[in-house]
Amino acid sequence: MGKTIDFQTDPSRYRHWRLAFDGDIAHLFMDVDESGGLFEGYALKLNSYDLGVDIELADIIQRLRFEHPEVKTVVLQSGKERVFCAGANIRMLGAASHAHKVNFCKFTNETRNALEAAGAESGQHYICAVKGACAGGGYELALACDHIILTDDGSSSVALPEVPLLAVLPGTGGLTRVTDKRKVRRDLADVFCTTEEGVKGKRAKEWRLVDELAPNSKFAEVVATRAKEFATRSSRPAGVPGVTLTPLARTFGENQVTYSSVEVEIDRPRRLAMVTVQGPKEPAPSSIDALQSEGAETWTLRAARELDDAILHLRNNEYEIGLLVFRSQGDPQRVVAHEKLLLENRSHWLANEILLLWKRVLKRVDLTSRSLATFVEPGSCFAGPLAELAFAADRSYMADGEFEGDNRPPATLTLTDGNFGPYLMSNGLTRLQTRFLGEPAKTDEARARVGAPLDADEAKSLGLVTFAFDDVDWEDEVRIFLEERASFSPDAMTGMEANLRFAGPETMETRIFSRLTAWQNWIFQRPNAVGDNGALKRYGTGLRGEFDMRRV
Amino acid sequence: MGKTIDFQTDPSRYRHWRLAFDGDIAHLFMDVDESGGLFEGYALKLNSYDLGVDIELADIIQRLRFEHPEVKTVVLQSGKERVFCAGANIRMLGAASHAHKVNFCKFTNETRNALEAAGAESGQHYICAVKGACAGGGYELALACDHIILTDDGSSSVALPEVPLLAVLPGTGGLTRVTDKRKVRRDLADVFCTTEEGVKGKRAKEWRLVDELAPNSKFAEVVATRAKEFATRSSRPAGVPGVTLTPLARTFGENQVTYSSVEVEIDRPRRLAMVTVQGPKEPAPSSIDALQSEGAETWTLRAARELDDAILHLRNNEYEIGLLVFRSQGDPQRVVAHEKLLLENRSHWLANEILLLWKRVLKRVDLTSRSLATFVEPGSCFAGPLAELAFAADRSYMADGEFEGDNRPPATLTLTDGNFGPYLMSNGLTRLQTRFLGEPAKTDEARARVGAPLDADEAKSLGLVTFAFDDVDWEDEVRIFLEERASFSPDAMTGMEANLRFAGPETMETRIFSRLTAWQNWIFQRPNAVGDNGALKRYGTGLRGEFDMRRV
Repeated sequence: MGKTIDFQTDPSRYRHWRLAFDGDIAHLFMDVDESGGLFEGYALKLNSYDLGVDIELADIIQRLRFEHPEVKTVVLQSGKERVFCAGANIRMLGAASHAHKVNFCKFTNETRNALEAAGAESGQHYICAVKGACAGGGYELALACDHIILTDDGSSSVALPEVPLLAVLPGTGGLTRVTDKRKVRRDLADVFCTTEEGVKGKRAKEWRLVDELAPNSKFAEVVATRAKEFATRSSRPAGVPGVTLTPLARTFGENQVTYSSVEVEIDRPRRLAMVTVQGPKEPAPSSIDALQSEGAETWTLRAARELDDAILHLRNNEYEIGLLVFRSQGDPQRVVAHEKLLLENRSHWLANEILLLWKRVLKRVDLTSRSLATFVEPGSCFAGPLAELAFAADRSYMADGEFEGDNRPPATLTLTDGNFGPYLMSNGLTRLQTRFLGEPAKTDEARARVGAPLDADEAKSLGLVTFAFDDVDWEDEVRIFLEERASFSPDAMTGMEANLRFAGPETMETRIFSRLTAWQNWIFQRPNAVGDNGALKRYGTGLRGEFDMRRV
Repeated sequence: MGKTIDFQTDPSRYRHWRLAFDGDIAHLFMDVDESGGLFEGYALKLNSYDLGVDIELADIIQRLRFEHPEVKTVVLQSGKERVFCAGANIRMLGAASHAHKVNFCKFTNETRNALEAAGAESGQHYICAVKGACAGGGYELALACDHIILTDDGSSSVALPEVPLLAVLPGTGGLTRVTDKRKVRRDLADVFCTTEEGVKGKRAKEWRLVDELAPNSKFAEVVATRAKEFATRSSRPAGVPGVTLTPLARTFGENQVTYSSVEVEIDRPRRLAMVTVQGPKEPAPSSIDALQSEGAETWTLRAARELDDAILHLRNNEYEIGLLVFRSQGDPQRVVAHEKLLLENRSHWLANEILLLWKRVLKRVDLTSRSLATFVEPGSCFAGPLAELAFAADRSYMADGEFEGDNRPPATLTLTDGNFGPYLMSNGLTRLQTRFLGEPAKTDEARARVGAPLDADEAKSLGLVTFAFDDVDWEDEVRIFLEERASFSPDAMTGMEANLRFAGPETMETRIFSRLTAWQNWIFQRPNAVGDNGALKRYGTGLRGEFDMRRV
């Protein structure tokens, strides 16, 4: 699977999904094109999916929030007869590398979280209308919706057949949402997850696997009623125009990706990528109307989308790049001003959506299994959302004072109200709260300095950066760090960072990415699943997996 | 490593630890016998340890609670010059099978949790006096203590060198306790965990890695003062006699382990073990004094110790046994009476310690990576602590009514107040709370029936058992379940059960066993650590690990 995976798409290119709009209700049909797989060697039968199908879904969820603010309920349903969705394509999984499997699951998880967040944060609720078999990743997609309606036709069922059929776990949050979102009794969950054919009708409702049943004859009617109810309850504004997400300005070089406000430079010998965010060149829009007029071109929205794409590109296409170094260039006060407009207008749907996009993008950064460092250098503009990149990093280096031959302004770090609320991590805390778990007073100390350009001394003493080095030491210290980091085992880094980054409370989201994902990744290494005679490899041959029966 | 591992020991057999008593303070010296390894092929240099060393430690912690109720502070220190503890022995780890590594880490984690619980639950606090290098598992042992004093001699240090040195994670809670117990700032934790030589002196204190520093000249004095302070604050009773933990009555057969109140029967073709607990044959002690006189022979203490040993034996010596079936035989009202004496005397140290032992044993059951089923059959005595075995199981089967040719009383299940508080799971909830997360009213419904022998109908309708089958169906249903369960991939079962068993909140303890352990297990499979050129395999050869640099 050596081809470059592109996470950008738009409605004109969708092959697997159809959208129909009916006032404040959108109908989203999953209708996977069998021959539209991202790679060769498998057919996407029975609405099974691969990463390409999910890239379209992620695009749809994003566009619905920005381009269709009028939509309050999305009805997710199958465009095919007799099957809702058969889950992730098994042949694709069987042939995929470990790294691809892991990154595929991570992206699909992020997409389902975004779908769930649309309801929770923006009042754009998804309800799932299930007719036909709804298995594995299909049921996990349903689980991410706010309401599941299952037809009671004697055959339609929900199932998580991964364990009995494939010797792997449901990889997209299934186990966690069964126990923690739907709160299915653990012994019933055990029966459900070991029953290949799944559960249908009354039992599915009794076991809390679905929210309601509807007879086939009244299915459309029940779904329509429920969609209206969800729309009525939604606090989304009516009749406001959306903002079109125009194509990103992006060019690929051999070792560069260049966007309008983000530059990625890959240093292959040192196995690192420098990700430089350009601060806004223009002043902040003068009003919320001006923001709406700027649309997708406004810096806050543009930079977030570009950063998101850059992270996804690096994650999925550059496996050997073990370290991302965040840098920035620009006027920090401009960043502050652009963000301020959003913070002061959170009741406006667009300002709110842009802040929520930053929240998702920054979470994507947290969850990126590459070492993350932030270099706060002369001329940089780490303020507000960009300062979060310093707090998301595993460690940060700040240049202290003037640097010889460098006429850019000395490095500063600027906190804003944005660093104290809107960009919550998946553990439900701000990055500063997580950082200062042991010394909560430090958060207040930092808050008292909102708006001030902090120099290296002060940023260091407030605990906002790890190290500060002056002109004399900077180059050596940074070089030693980069060399050392590149020498460590990537697996140990992945495991260590997954533990150190998420101190404090666990949420359903962190559980999905830690407990569930870590066990799944372990199983994705085990011969019982992925060996030549493993269940995943043997799927479709008529032979069951041959297992080493030793428990670990 | 085919030899049977015995988890029973006693002070006369200790090779690696020394204890000295000084009133309410105990001095525990780690002084590992280099040639006392559990297996051949490695020397336990520099106070490094293997499972055998930890079995002694677990025994000491247990005996201190039962045999030395007068002890309020335990001072943990090295019996060697210039080294505190070098951590788990690397050659042992390098040679061990994946299953042994995983089970070694699990047991050492449980031991550290027991050490921590001694302070939190019983006021028997451990303080750690560190002189010399305190690295890896050595520092993780210190982390489990309530207070760490480091000598400020210019060379003594604490370190977690696993990642840079061995390409694995600290496997005994280190990362989790650094972030969540000691709340070390995440970027400093990143620096600490990637610095092979560790951190010493002032920086160790500033970074919250230790609680205090003491100059070498005053070290003994500071330690003594602190030990007294902890003792003064402890609520443990003074001057009460302990209870000697006499050797377990235990005989091994090829397919049996027989204790006085527990019988393990191994069915190798079906890859299962029947674990039958015999209820008390004698009435409950008439008073707390009578309980103390019965000492280690009293049923509640004896059965808990035997069950604990049986679980450890099955976990570590019977890898191919994938399913444990819990059964019981006896008079449920006797179980109720024995437990009642403890519940009514929780302010008495011994009653309290026995309840806390059950709590730990039942947690050990929860954390056992084998499928767990409970069969509630005619003549059984699933009440109070034994009823917890039904709630700890992945699923339970209850016999409904009379069985032909069986003159034992029909199966019942009996709830006690014990099922609503003292035996909390590692997630901080009771097993019934965890079970009824989605329907909390069910917990109250169950509580209203405390003391009543519930028949299968009622137990089923209260949601306390998964299935109830009568005489006609029982045999077939149970046979199908056993066959099916034995056919699944053990790895998929391990991952699924680790997710389904722990719904609800996460605690430091659950994080250690899920997030940290799952990532560690993944790394323990990766060639970068355990391959022929991996860091763990190459340790001691002078060569560093050779890594596949692709990130996953």
